[in-house]
Amino acid sequence: MTAPYAVIMAGGSGTRFWPLSRRARPKQFLAIGTPRTLIEETVARLAPLIPAERVMVVAGEGHVPAIRDLLPDQWLVTEPCARNTAPCVGLAAVHLARRDPDAVMAVLPADHHIADAPGFRRLIAAALERARAGEIVTLGIRPDRPETGYGYIHYNREDTLATSSGVEVCAVRRFVEKPPRAVAERYLAEGGYLWNSGMFFFTAARILADIRRFLPAMAAALDRIAAAVGTPDEAEVTVREFAAMESVSIDYGVMEHADRVRVVPADIGWNDVGHWAALADFGTPDTAGNVRSGGRAEDLVLIDARECIVQQSGGRLVALLGVDELVVVDTPDVLLVCARDRVQDVRKVVARLEETKREELL
Amino acid sequence: MTAPYAVIMAGGSGTRFWPLSRRARPKQFLAIGTPRTLIEETVARLAPLIPAERVMVVAGEGHVPAIRDLLPDQWLVTEPCARNTAPCVGLAAVHLARRDPDAVMAVLPADHHIADAPGFRRLIAAALERARAGEIVTLGIRPDRPETGYGYIHYNREDTLATSSGVEVCAVRRFVEKPPRAVAERYLAEGGYLWNSGMFFFTAARILADIRRFLPAMAAALDRIAAAVGTPDEAEVTVREFAAMESVSIDYGVMEHADRVRVVPADIGWNDVGHWAALADFGTPDTAGNVRSGGRAEDLVLIDARECIVQQSGGRLVALLGVDELVVVDTPDVLLVCARDRVQDVRKVVARLEETKREELL
Repeated sequence: MTAPYAVIMAGGSGTRFWPLSRRARPKQFLAIGTPRTLIEETVARLAPLIPAERVMVVAGEGHVPAIRDLLPDQWLVTEPCARNTAPCVGLAAVHLARRDPDAVMAVLPADHHIADAPGFRRLIAAALERARAGEIVTLGIRPDRPETGYGYIHYNREDTLATSSGVEVCAVRRFVEKPPRAVAERYLAEGGYLWNSGMFFFTAARILADIRRFLPAMAAALDRIAAAVGTPDEAEVTVREFAAMESVSIDYGVMEHADRVRVVPADIGWNDVGHWAALADFGTPDTAGNVRSGGRAEDLVLIDARECIVQQSGGRLVALLGVDELVVVDTPDVLLVCARDRVQDVRKVVARLEETKREELL
Repeated sequence: MTAPYAVIMAGGSGTRFWPLSRRARPKQFLAIGTPRTLIEETVARLAPLIPAERVMVVAGEGHVPAIRDLLPDQWLVTEPCARNTAPCVGLAAVHLARRDPDAVMAVLPADHHIADAPGFRRLIAAALERARAGEIVTLGIRPDRPETGYGYIHYNREDTLATSSGVEVCAVRRFVEKPPRAVAERYLAEGGYLWNSGMFFFTAARILADIRRFLPAMAAALDRIAAAVGTPDEAEVTVREFAAMESVSIDYGVMEHADRVRVVPADIGWNDVGHWAALADFGTPDTAGNVRSGGRAEDLVLIDARECIVQQSGGRLVALLGVDELVVVDTPDVLLVCARDRVQDVRKVVARLEETKREELL
């Protein structure tokens, strides 16, 4: 039985952690509520199950310096441009299949937080077991609130396989796009729904076969890349073919149409670290509910401050006096002061800076 | 008739404009809602009436570098230590009387804001006219709110002298310490009360005579300093005698007991720039009531921010998102975020830093 591989998708370029995150250093390259950066945490979390030498990182050219800085020896495949997850997964599968035709792979985001790492490894070992048997497996997070920011997976609790470790792997009925609030509330009340975590498990052969079935043009492009890998034309062909691929997610382009798709329900302290308010989930709040991240304790003075989140970069004193429910992010060149319930709108600040051509701050 | 002198008391060392103000550079050495620093504004405001060469600045040793930096050629008398206003005024009077035995002097704080400078000069010309006649004159601000942070002057509107320019100079009934709220409201409703602005006018001879009458020990010490001025012992004698003087205000130590005390009611756009919220009185608010001070307009991004006051030191972007009624003060080594109605408590932050021995930030 061939040992599993992991593919860490590190191409994300969100703005929700601006100003700490910048174009050249998005969230996955930051330590957010963690001792190490999220991508380092992701690699380290896998290590007992999938050692680092079997972990491929896929990211854009612009992120290569950040990755080389953090993970100098990591197996790195660069995406010539951003084309959503289906081309990314396809490219990774091409490279993996060349190294190991029987490769089974865990596809994981680089920027999530998982509190229960041993539990997580136990679940992915089970998912990989079913993936080896030819299935497409996802990890579905048991919801604890009617979140409208995630896709949901409707699963069949009656159609369950137990893996060798006893973990239950259930049949997927269907994938659901981000629902309106009322629908999310119904899902939570009814049960039978999980959050789509964006973590997938399959053999390289299975996913390439399904890309061929559902995205034939993409499969043909991947064939041309596969033929060029290891030749002097590899870079040129990859750039040309990748750029021409349809920008589509692996969920929407393949998963939703595929058969033999299963899900592992997970309760592992998962957090997608979606915005600044998520810091409150990781830090240790003081008695007034304030959470500190980065910097030194002695560089934060709080007087009559409540439910604030403060991210410091070190070197400056931050003093909060008589304020409630703020997010304060202090970086060397930018200070953000944001109402805690408005963190979703940080992108509006970034958009304003784009309009005014403040490239140095993006 | 001898030309008047001004004495600018620049010894203040408040903490209410921390972190922009520091021990070595208190408020009077900052530009707060003004193009130049408050002390430079104070000197410039007098110039058409009292040119800079007739203006003495009195300040502590620690402030000499800041003064030399801003006003390199200014006549400067240093207080060896902080001893409130009576010793300061006495020392200034000794030096002035030596230069001009008939000197008439305007004693003015270095750190106030006066919108109507021509009106101000008209009133002080009138005050100086009465001072030349041997009276002690103060400037009293007509109150527009029941402020509890100032002392009041109860005056007699019936006992009024008109000066040559037509300005009315009224008899003072009594000085009143900072009143409780209910009392301040009564003063405002009744009329006949003015705010004590801390601006005084008298001849050097008159104030030295009254110090002798009401503070005889201080007068004796001033005599010993006067005898030493211009001798090799001047510095040593000044340090020794000044340090031994009673720390008392000129209001409490002399004015309240003196006779022939008059007040000029003033309506000159006076503001003592008492705390960060005062910035809102000077700046031009945007349509949402936000006021910006310092820094460049392009370095402030406001999205759904209301009634905020932002003080920038330049070089960093400040972004406020969805926040109301905050004071944000951004300096190179300290950031303060404060509720607008809590600016009076900035000293609590400073006290915390004193406790934790953060001398570099004080």
